Amino acid sequence: MCPANMFSTEKKEDSTKKQQPLQTINLDQGDPTMFVEYWKKAGEKSSIVINAWQNLSYFPNDNGGNICWFLEKEFSDEVTKLHELVGNAVTKDRYIVVGTGSTQLYQASLFALVNVNDHDYSSKPMDVVSAVPFYSSYPAVTDFLKSGLYKWGGDAYKFDHKNEPYIEVVCSPNNPDGHTMGPVVNGNGGKLIYDLAYYWPQYTPITKPADHDIMLFTVSKSTGHAGTRVGWAIVKDEKIARKMTKFIELSTIGVSKDSQYRAATIMRAVTESGQSISLQLAGNFFEFGKNIMVDRWERLRKVASENGAFSLPKYPKQYCNYFGEIKEAHPGFAWLKCNLENVEDCESLVKGNLKILVRGGKNFGMDNSKYVRVSLLDLEDKFQILLERLSTVSSSSTKVKA
Amino acid sequence: MCPANMFSTEKKEDSTKKQQPLQTINLDQGDPTMFVEYWKKAGEKSSIVINAWQNLSYFPNDNGGNICWFLEKEFSDEVTKLHELVGNAVTKDRYIVVGTGSTQLYQASLFALVNVNDHDYSSKPMDVVSAVPFYSSYPAVTDFLKSGLYKWGGDAYKFDHKNEPYIEVVCSPNNPDGHTMGPVVNGNGGKLIYDLAYYWPQYTPITKPADHDIMLFTVSKSTGHAGTRVGWAIVKDEKIARKMTKFIELSTIGVSKDSQYRAATIMRAVTESGQSISLQLAGNFFEFGKNIMVDRWERLRKVASENGAFSLPKYPKQYCNYFGEIKEAHPGFAWLKCNLENVEDCESLVKGNLKILVRGGKNFGMDNSKYVRVSLLDLEDKFQILLERLSTVSSSSTKVKA
Repeated sequence: MCPANMFSTEKKEDSTKKQQPLQTINLDQGDPTMFVEYWKKAGEKSSIVINAWQNLSYFPNDNGGNICWFLEKEFSDEVTKLHELVGNAVTKDRYIVVGTGSTQLYQASLFALVNVNDHDYSSKPMDVVSAVPFYSSYPAVTDFLKSGLYKWGGDAYKFDHKNEPYIEVVCSPNNPDGHTMGPVVNGNGGKLIYDLAYYWPQYTPITKPADHDIMLFTVSKSTGHAGTRVGWAIVKDEKIARKMTKFIELSTIGVSKDSQYRAATIMRAVTESGQSISLQLAGNFFEFGKNIMVDRWERLRKVASENGAFSLPKYPKQYCNYFGEIKEAHPGFAWLKCNLENVEDCESLVKGNLKILVRGGKNFGMDNSKYVRVSLLDLEDKFQILLERLSTVSSSSTKVKA
Repeated sequence: MCPANMFSTEKKEDSTKKQQPLQTINLDQGDPTMFVEYWKKAGEKSSIVINAWQNLSYFPNDNGGNICWFLEKEFSDEVTKLHELVGNAVTKDRYIVVGTGSTQLYQASLFALVNVNDHDYSSKPMDVVSAVPFYSSYPAVTDFLKSGLYKWGGDAYKFDHKNEPYIEVVCSPNNPDGHTMGPVVNGNGGKLIYDLAYYWPQYTPITKPADHDIMLFTVSKSTGHAGTRVGWAIVKDEKIARKMTKFIELSTIGVSKDSQYRAATIMRAVTESGQSISLQLAGNFFEFGKNIMVDRWERLRKVASENGAFSLPKYPKQYCNYFGEIKEAHPGFAWLKCNLENVEDCESLVKGNLKILVRGGKNFGMDNSKYVRVSLLDLEDKFQILLERLSTVSSSSTKVKA
């Protein structure tokens, strides 16, 4: 399946030296370490000191009257300010629910939607669907407890709603392929969850403030702080917000206050950097992110076009309200298609021969194995290795599909 | 049910003044704010600074080769040192799994035990039981997703195991009543989870290092940092530790690194305070905690014996290896029994008339409503109000049961 002669390493290796085995690099997860460089420049203002006597209580220091009882007002204030600056989501007259990352908020949304609908789960769990290629974690996260409330229903394009209630997850920009998405089932009984983790100006044009019933965001992708495990939901319906809060209470009795305060501090720094108030050294955070993404996509597209072995999605040019310019998307993942005719399994090729851990298309609901998802959010040296190894794949030794 | 004349407020109120309505105080949760006083004295060494460029990755800075992939070595090192100092749990040759509080670890344990047992969950979920009075959250946390893997099976004393697999949760010292517990079902197919949240020397004599298959601990009750949402499991079986790790990965993609580092810093301060290395100002942490608990129990027992309206559990005197002295338990909750013959519902009495939010016995699986759980871990002023209001209940106006 993956003949050795497909890989020409002559450009990169000195033939007089004994060849060293390639070291495996991990670009499987979207680990957002490329943002470390920015934060190293950002200075002390975005650091946080937590004294031993702080944050002992289960309850917030100041909840601000929010119905999410464990939400710190300082956190929700910064969420609101950041969205106002970026213009990517409506927050006025909305409820904010904080979660231990957007993964927990996704589950909280399912729980809330099933309960609020008064779904008769004694008969059967509600279907949860998303359009292929969908985020690879949705099926496992939906099904791992074999809940009687909901179950994974697969590809939204193939789903027959039968006029019954269902939940559709709309991931936009989509993980893995970066495209702007809308609902595809459009049944009467459908409830929507919008996973907007990547709807930030470093990845995609901000065309309008998103305004949906349930919208999920996370600091992992907005500011790069995945290790902080904090996300938030913006919710229209009070009952849904209450049920989501109940889920998180039962799941983890709230969300780390330390992390909420840290996330608030980081988001404040991002907002101020966007207003050019401070952090002059590090510059505008989104500008920093966009510049890296544009640069990486240019280099990646160049390698792909030179060897012809791989192709990449194309994105429309759109006006970005945040940057005030026409631009195309530069997603955090490359949704790479192998064009090599004799390669059935692109994941094995990239993992096995190039020694790059990536996620194969089947994880995203694809029938064929021509696709892999590759993270573009890691450190520069890893991205450079990715380019070098991709460029060693020679299409001359094999037929390239039209 | 709660006649007004049962409450004599003459001792506390000036009869010439117009009576003010009582302000409601909340002693429902075990919110461990009494420890704030200690940590205010503990100084800067137990503070933590987190710079903006730290903890961005999903992955630990140093995992130390632990099979729990999101566990920070610094955290597990401090867990081990603290248990070595206190002598309350065996950690040698054990796996440590970090969780977003012990509530998440409880669910991870259920998930792991069902999966590792290769339980046929297609037929029916596995029963989860605990001896009455059991921790009030177990039923809801077990059942809220209507999992096909496990379901709440109620009181362990009444459970018929029918030689089938089941899970028994042993909470020791028990929440709510403070007694040392062991398993009660003892069926062949039983798997045990030990919830040892309160097995610390400020609450109970440390008689031996606990050495069970799965043991759950949390910083909420050990150091008082409930808002940090960090707990840990000590696990004998590698497969169980792996499955618990998988649960937490699917549930929240790991545990806040900020909180792990903060918890490590706090635990290091506790260990050093116990070794008298530093923190001279604040003194030995467990001594501080024990002194408060002893003092509060003495004052509470005095009020109870004076008015006869309430009674409290009695605890055996045992040798505490940590303090090197014979002592009895001084639990974090008072499991208060109303002796008033004309009071059927103690919760309504305490909530309605005394305006103290407490948790009624039915939440803990009790058939009768004579019991309430009252937190003794809150700030001194709230504890004082508790005593004052309890002392206003006059048993002279009603018959007191033998």
